[in-house]
Amino acid sequence: MTEYDTFLSPVGRQLHESAIRRMGTVVARSADIVSFAAGYPDPASFPWDELREIASELLSGADGSVLQYGPTRGYEPLLESIVALLAERHITADLNEVTITSGSQQGIDLVARVLVTPGDVVLVELPAYTGAISAFKNVQAHMAGVKQDEDGINLDDLDQVCQRERRAGRRVNLLYLVPNFQNPTGRLLGLEKRRRLLEWAEQRNILIVEDDPYRSLYFDDMAIEADTRPIRADDRHGRVIYLSTFSKTLAPGFRVGWMVAPPALIERFETAKQSVDLTTGTLDQRIVDEAVRRGAIERLAPQLRNLYRHKRDVMERALGDELGDRLHWVAPKGGFFLWATLPEGSDDLTLLARALDQRLVFVIGSAFYVDGTGHDRIRLSFSAPTPERILEGVRRLAAALQAASASPAKAGHYVR
Amino acid sequence: MTEYDTFLSPVGRQLHESAIRRMGTVVARSADIVSFAAGYPDPASFPWDELREIASELLSGADGSVLQYGPTRGYEPLLESIVALLAERHITADLNEVTITSGSQQGIDLVARVLVTPGDVVLVELPAYTGAISAFKNVQAHMAGVKQDEDGINLDDLDQVCQRERRAGRRVNLLYLVPNFQNPTGRLLGLEKRRRLLEWAEQRNILIVEDDPYRSLYFDDMAIEADTRPIRADDRHGRVIYLSTFSKTLAPGFRVGWMVAPPALIERFETAKQSVDLTTGTLDQRIVDEAVRRGAIERLAPQLRNLYRHKRDVMERALGDELGDRLHWVAPKGGFFLWATLPEGSDDLTLLARALDQRLVFVIGSAFYVDGTGHDRIRLSFSAPTPERILEGVRRLAAALQAASASPAKAGHYVR
Repeated sequence: MTEYDTFLSPVGRQLHESAIRRMGTVVARSADIVSFAAGYPDPASFPWDELREIASELLSGADGSVLQYGPTRGYEPLLESIVALLAERHITADLNEVTITSGSQQGIDLVARVLVTPGDVVLVELPAYTGAISAFKNVQAHMAGVKQDEDGINLDDLDQVCQRERRAGRRVNLLYLVPNFQNPTGRLLGLEKRRRLLEWAEQRNILIVEDDPYRSLYFDDMAIEADTRPIRADDRHGRVIYLSTFSKTLAPGFRVGWMVAPPALIERFETAKQSVDLTTGTLDQRIVDEAVRRGAIERLAPQLRNLYRHKRDVMERALGDELGDRLHWVAPKGGFFLWATLPEGSDDLTLLARALDQRLVFVIGSAFYVDGTGHDRIRLSFSAPTPERILEGVRRLAAALQAASASPAKAGHYVR
Repeated sequence: MTEYDTFLSPVGRQLHESAIRRMGTVVARSADIVSFAAGYPDPASFPWDELREIASELLSGADGSVLQYGPTRGYEPLLESIVALLAERHITADLNEVTITSGSQQGIDLVARVLVTPGDVVLVELPAYTGAISAFKNVQAHMAGVKQDEDGINLDDLDQVCQRERRAGRRVNLLYLVPNFQNPTGRLLGLEKRRRLLEWAEQRNILIVEDDPYRSLYFDDMAIEADTRPIRADDRHGRVIYLSTFSKTLAPGFRVGWMVAPPALIERFETAKQSVDLTTGTLDQRIVDEAVRRGAIERLAPQLRNLYRHKRDVMERALGDELGDRLHWVAPKGGFFLWATLPEGSDDLTLLARALDQRLVFVIGSAFYVDGTGHDRIRLSFSAPTPERILEGVRRLAAALQAASASPAKAGHYVR
């Protein structure tokens, strides 16, 4: 038999697996599992009737380009729709500053390939989105973690980490962050901090990768639209690469995201994308564009805010009822996630093992930390399950916590 | 203003642009251009009514997973459909040897990332598909070209090139080729050569990347199904990574392809894909699977063979009528392309410039060569234009050739 390990590239040998995707595989194997793991939107919220009608019209056969290869940059009317949508987010962008991506995950990957040299340091938050950690590790970046406060990334620590890495002779070009309802913490970056981040990036010659999938999902009782103003909106020096997606406002199955960057970089991303997948799905782009033009996003967004706010309430109330004060968390002001601190002495891996016994999954906190910590945290997604399943899942979590506290906690496991 | 060049990685700095994709941009700018450039299928051949019906049923809302995130490996029923489809191609594969890719271009890119170390040599045919050249160059591979005969790659030259590169201290792990109706030559690899290639790969410890998008499109007057037997069908030692797609038999706008490889490698490709795009479009996979299950491919394939054979005939006849013996080519036995040799003293770049004056595009021969040659060739795609547009395009080509022969040929231009 052929021995394949000898064929692997350094990238192929050290591939970083997504803890979230792995949990997805577990869920697929059993119907009765309650999943608080993946940050999936609620499929009941997808505008099925409208999408069916749009797909029917597009597939009439009158326009052959609907199922043909298309330009790598994207379907031009959709690029125009996105420019309009960006204006509502207070972002002024020209057409030549935008490109379509196959989900915003592809945007992160293109940034990694075009801008990261093996051995470079990428600055990320502690904790940070695992999909970004994987994409950067898979181009052989070193990850340096920066502390967060309640209102997002700690600017003093940011500067210290950056300068420490540079003094050690490493190249530091990029800061990756999720300013709105961060994955996994649900935190909202303060407006004053956003302004100061731009000054800092200019001073330290850094590019900020602003990943913004959850922006429209602020909860009216704790946040307003103005709180979610993108960093890119005030970027005067071309310091921000802005990523977003239709996955959380329309549906993720389309795999349509976009990136905004200075034209010189957009050209590079587009050229890289040519050999990556030629083009994002053509029918998907056409359906999404037509839905946007018919006002679907504006119509849906308030409903989604209410829907997910309600689910957050259900989860918070159930956690209080079932667990008393054994878990601690800060109430999410938007997005999909509740980020919980475990009782003293608990650890995320032991709890996950006990949760699987109870047919419950969530994501272990340590998966989001690039410094090996986070074993005292778990991420609970309240977005996909129905209120009934949330209640059932929290009951199972209580049982798992009970069982975990009866068994000794393992220490020192770092799950990649 | 920020100076972005200093931020680019070595990959970002040296990105390899696709000549074919660039031609696509030219076409998009003008409606009256005749394009013999991109290898697009004929949209009139897409099964619009069936696809519309399938999309309508899937988008009823009864099954939320149709627009949800899905497993990175792919929608399991589609993986099963592909295993059945592979059996018709004489390939025995288990479910754990298959993964869905976002078009077969992504398959090439995943191979490049997981199996190519910067500085490695990848063996390709002279000429070879530009999308593969780009994907390998974009992971900093060196490309070594191998001569072709009428019946495909020259095995003596293959071994000589491989051993020469190894003696020079370079790592050589991969051979990339398109055995059926090669892009750009349209050539069919001989059956005896396929068998000997497998022996050679085992002897020299090489993995063969077999890219097979055109297999179903053999032309009955010059080839039979048995001539297209995949190399993978007789692979006893796990030497072949097989790539294919629904882009040429159903429609490319779906971006659904697949790869077949030993389980140890499929796991790596899947892990790499996690951070690349999470998953291939879910609706796309569902529509394609349903179309396959309803027998669309079996029903369409004979029609497609007749359609493209007819278009080949139209182009060959027109070339004879308009150009006499000024162009030379070997009649394509299948696929989308006619690979033509220019008259003595002509060069592909000068001719393309004159063709653009006539509102005609094609792909310059040199774009397919990794050794700087090929300026005496052009690739003419007959697949997308109607017979009338083929006739018009050939008339424009005749005028461009006339104009080019009146102006001095530039020498030594190598277009990347």
